[in-house]
Amino acid sequence: MDSAAAPRNSQHKLEDNLRHIVKLLEKHRLVETMVDRDRASPRHDLIESLVHRQHLVELQLKLRSLHPADIAYILEALPLDDRLLVWRQIQDDSGGEVLLEVSDAVRDWLIEVLERPVLVRVLSQLDADDLAELVDAVAEDVLVEVLQTLTARDRDWVQSTMAYLEDRVGHLMSPDVLTVREGQRIEQVLWLLRGRDDLPPNTDSLFVVDARHQCKGVLPLRALLLNDPGKQVAELMLANPVVFGANDSADEAARAFERYDLISAPVINERGKLVGRLTVDAVMDYIREESEEDALNMAGLQGDEDLFAPIWASARNRWLWLAINLCTAFVASRAIGLFEGTISQIVALATLMPIVAGIGGNSGNQTTALVVRGLALGEITPENTWHLVFKELGVGLLNGVAWGATVGLFAYLLYWNLPLGGVMAAAMLLNLLLAALVGVAIPLTLHRFGRDPAMGSSVLLTFITDGMGFFIFLGLATVCLL
Amino acid sequence: MDSAAAPRNSQHKLEDNLRHIVKLLEKHRLVETMVDRDRASPRHDLIESLVHRQHLVELQLKLRSLHPADIAYILEALPLDDRLLVWRQIQDDSGGEVLLEVSDAVRDWLIEVLERPVLVRVLSQLDADDLAELVDAVAEDVLVEVLQTLTARDRDWVQSTMAYLEDRVGHLMSPDVLTVREGQRIEQVLWLLRGRDDLPPNTDSLFVVDARHQCKGVLPLRALLLNDPGKQVAELMLANPVVFGANDSADEAARAFERYDLISAPVINERGKLVGRLTVDAVMDYIREESEEDALNMAGLQGDEDLFAPIWASARNRWLWLAINLCTAFVASRAIGLFEGTISQIVALATLMPIVAGIGGNSGNQTTALVVRGLALGEITPENTWHLVFKELGVGLLNGVAWGATVGLFAYLLYWNLPLGGVMAAAMLLNLLLAALVGVAIPLTLHRFGRDPAMGSSVLLTFITDGMGFFIFLGLATVCLL
Repeated sequence: MDSAAAPRNSQHKLEDNLRHIVKLLEKHRLVETMVDRDRASPRHDLIESLVHRQHLVELQLKLRSLHPADIAYILEALPLDDRLLVWRQIQDDSGGEVLLEVSDAVRDWLIEVLERPVLVRVLSQLDADDLAELVDAVAEDVLVEVLQTLTARDRDWVQSTMAYLEDRVGHLMSPDVLTVREGQRIEQVLWLLRGRDDLPPNTDSLFVVDARHQCKGVLPLRALLLNDPGKQVAELMLANPVVFGANDSADEAARAFERYDLISAPVINERGKLVGRLTVDAVMDYIREESEEDALNMAGLQGDEDLFAPIWASARNRWLWLAINLCTAFVASRAIGLFEGTISQIVALATLMPIVAGIGGNSGNQTTALVVRGLALGEITPENTWHLVFKELGVGLLNGVAWGATVGLFAYLLYWNLPLGGVMAAAMLLNLLLAALVGVAIPLTLHRFGRDPAMGSSVLLTFITDGMGFFIFLGLATVCLL
Repeated sequence: MDSAAAPRNSQHKLEDNLRHIVKLLEKHRLVETMVDRDRASPRHDLIESLVHRQHLVELQLKLRSLHPADIAYILEALPLDDRLLVWRQIQDDSGGEVLLEVSDAVRDWLIEVLERPVLVRVLSQLDADDLAELVDAVAEDVLVEVLQTLTARDRDWVQSTMAYLEDRVGHLMSPDVLTVREGQRIEQVLWLLRGRDDLPPNTDSLFVVDARHQCKGVLPLRALLLNDPGKQVAELMLANPVVFGANDSADEAARAFERYDLISAPVINERGKLVGRLTVDAVMDYIREESEEDALNMAGLQGDEDLFAPIWASARNRWLWLAINLCTAFVASRAIGLFEGTISQIVALATLMPIVAGIGGNSGNQTTALVVRGLALGEITPENTWHLVFKELGVGLLNGVAWGATVGLFAYLLYWNLPLGGVMAAAMLLNLLLAALVGVAIPLTLHRFGRDPAMGSSVLLTFITDGMGFFIFLGLATVCLL
């Protein structure tokens, strides 16, 4: 990562760059079309080799001045054919680093379209640490070929981090650990550091280990700067640092980084041996990716989706949740089917029933969102669950009375039918109470069974509040109005 | 923040602490009830002063051993009365730091319940930087009283950051900036550093300024450690660092921190003068808070809500979106009202219409989620908008044909009515195309008018897919089936 030299850009500047590149691409395409039209003429080759190339050279120069993260941003914002054209200009230069920076969806697309030798060449630009980030995305046989270009030590590193699941600390850690011994003097440490060209990125402390490579503490870099060089490491180190196990959950490690404002922390294996380092940049990327994935999942997308994915791939990414939704909608519609006789006698019921179901779903989703967050923060414990259930039922009761009265009045004014208004109000109250109960129960149950409570909660909830909303309203109407 | 001494805990350990404290609280309450029952007896005072206090002392000792962030976690997980009891034990000790660490909802609740003198005392424990974080939450008159306890310089700092909106860099920056001059030698810088007790947290670099306090570059701490002390600052500094304006958007600054893996960066005012420092811990807190707030807002909660908020406060927090939802549901229900005559002739329509509306809403939400993220990342530009619209229409068409055929077949099999199946399939296709169009248009329009596209997108979209879904389906049925 020798990216310190490339200038870094504000969002504003980034968008300017994007516009500039889009213009270059347009000019390039324009010339290409002209050349195509002119293909019959003898001047064809000449034009292509002069005018055509000129824009590409300009494009290359522009791209070369950008930070890999900025190139990644531009790739993500371009439609597929432009994206590939831009990628071709940079693949041999900074392809590996750009591949690290692009979103998962764009990375998967690139890995799919690139010819195998190109992909191997690009991946071989990366060091072991960065390569380990990409192992899940790359086909087994490509990986084997790339691993052969590494030293035995680097190959070992990639293979050992591959063994950890994506949501474990071991998957996010990096190998570049600087260690010192308790008995060393600060001046010795300083002398060792001066022998190096550079420190690994995000190094705010050195790790103190004993002869068995067990982590005894951390020595902040600031301690080297602020103290008398004659002192010993043992005097200055923090003996009780936050240490993560390689098998710890990445979510919890991210929480700890936020809680304790960490920059880097030692990672140890089951036997307490120091095996790597977790840094704030990896944690921050993890937090952002997780929160974006959650937002997309909650809206019913299966995985990360490229903004400009081919239509067929996009449609496939959305089918699972649409299919589930279709099934639940069918079942809920059967709840209405039970009462066709009632509806044929009082058609007004058909116009009012979506209101009961809709508000129930909305209110239940509010409860679910709170519970999902509470679970993510570890704030919900067996001791306070009942407290939470009663509180949500209380809110449901309060809302049910207030909004039930409102919709009841509305139904009455619309059809001048007092019993209809009463049924509407009662159905609303019952459905909001049900929504509160189910809104707490669904995420808690998913969590109890080790599932992610954010995924599917909303679909399940809407299914129940819809189906039961229709059933309660039409059932009450059948009993009271016929 | 002298929290380095307090041991830091894994999530697992945190939950153990919570359980321990809940047990202490239970014992404490048990004794209190016994004492209450015994109030008539002369032993009352004695028991209270002995047994009762014993648990409180144990509680205090336990709490004192915890990091402020860990106490904050425990407060958030406790119901209101227990929470206040725990808070009372720590308020004079680490109250200020805990107030910084708790969630916004819990902080607001604490500030509301605390007596004014206590609040002033707690806030006075904080330094200017931390106090500036809380200014929005505290009443004007309390703030004035607290500000009087500060030095004139600190007071100025608080008042100047107060001038920036919450989503600006100026609101997140901290004042503790270490500056050097280009002409200084490294040995001079080292000598100056040794004169300090400590460096501000998250200091990975010193800022290089000229005589007019304009920021000329940054000098990484690593440069001090790795290089010959005889060199000059100008030789070792990075002359082209990422610099933020105090009025820059905090969202964009957060993106830049992620993109370029920053730990700290200079903040300048409109005249280019160095005014503060933005650090990765403030950025990480900001990212987490924003993503949680977005998730809650999208589920229809107005602001952050305390898991154990009083019922009345919770209900109020949810009313705005429920009211909006009620209005849109009323309007959509009127779309059905237009076709009461049709429904009374073909009751099956009432059972099938929620399916058309529901799948439309679901599919539109998928599109909206993608567009909202694309906008947040700055990936959607005027140049590629049409590309996106056509792609989403393509996905809508594909899904409309596939799922339209499915539901059409279902309707046919259920009622053995071929025209009904045809109407169902056609309505589904049209509603999915509409959902694709509206799913792109709504967030883009909100964004164009400077609103947050994540907020309200989903409600507006569901309103249109519901209302138009009903209208298209029942309208087609009226034309084709009657």
